[in-house]
Amino acid sequence: MNETLQTIKTRYSCRSFKDTAVEKEKIEAIALAGVQSPSGMNVQPWKIVALNNKTVIDEMNQTLMDKLAAQEDRTLYDRMMGRGGKVFYNAPLMYVIAKLPGKDLDCGIVCENMALAASSLGLGNVICGLAALLINDEIGKEYKEKLIPEGYEFGVALLVGYAVDSDGTPHEPDLSKIIYVE
Amino acid sequence: MNETLQTIKTRYSCRSFKDTAVEKEKIEAIALAGVQSPSGMNVQPWKIVALNNKTVIDEMNQTLMDKLAAQEDRTLYDRMMGRGGKVFYNAPLMYVIAKLPGKDLDCGIVCENMALAASSLGLGNVICGLAALLINDEIGKEYKEKLIPEGYEFGVALLVGYAVDSDGTPHEPDLSKIIYVE
Repeated sequence: MNETLQTIKTRYSCRSFKDTAVEKEKIEAIALAGVQSPSGMNVQPWKIVALNNKTVIDEMNQTLMDKLAAQEDRTLYDRMMGRGGKVFYNAPLMYVIAKLPGKDLDCGIVCENMALAASSLGLGNVICGLAALLINDEIGKEYKEKLIPEGYEFGVALLVGYAVDSDGTPHEPDLSKIIYVE
Repeated sequence: MNETLQTIKTRYSCRSFKDTAVEKEKIEAIALAGVQSPSGMNVQPWKIVALNNKTVIDEMNQTLMDKLAAQEDRTLYDRMMGRGGKVFYNAPLMYVIAKLPGKDLDCGIVCENMALAASSLGLGNVICGLAALLINDEIGKEYKEKLIPEGYEFGVALLVGYAVDSDGTPHEPDLSKIIYVE
């Protein structure tokens, strides 16, 4: 098995990060992997915003946790509390992939390139759609202004850092989802 | 630069395939990379359908080219004719990634895992959204029945095979799409 297949196989969703900052060259390599993505007609309907500021990410985390705590339905809040109480898992680095409206598929392609790049560099990472609950909400207005360029919208976030437990396991692949036809 | 980053960097959209069939173990390795994808709440809202039958793909190609030729707007037809006259580029292998409604981002993640897996195995590949023009049209009804499982819808296709020109070049990454914020 080659290294690329190995990276795809062993990548897992990291849900607990160390405080350790990520090196500048790794931050840039991950972003570069994003802009190396293919897109239909090569339109590249994205912007990649790297937020390398743990203080701001921690503030965003707290604002979103407060919102979840105040909701009538506490399912999400309880799940997050069960996972250490941090919706952004203490990550020191967040990428926001902003996209043009309707370009979700392209956004997924970019996101996976970046996730695999991070894993290949020895970094834990987790794709975080939940950040939308903050960025697209009135309470997250200041973060939206910081993170979403004019004319774009939130696509998805990728949280990156050094994993507390660096040998996490990926989910078991479901082979029944593969169908061979002639 | 590690091999995963190298695969991401050098992967390109292949638009001319040899007739050569793809080996069974490679067909399976690419599909496996797909089902190893992460998904929100691990819902895995996809099916991966591998169509390893060049005769059927060639028929699909011709049916879609005939449709494009008959359209008033000939832009797409002319573009395809300029690229060799084959909307599926003579590929011997087509994967259709079927998805649950609204799960385009997940579909993009799966698709990029598979594209990188194919590249890492020395195979040309190109992501093909245009197949929707056939599969979601009345003229492609028989192919939809063959390729889209009940309850799912067309997400995207990935065409795979040995490249006629195996040193194709990827598009130049646009570094202005990366923004660093504090």
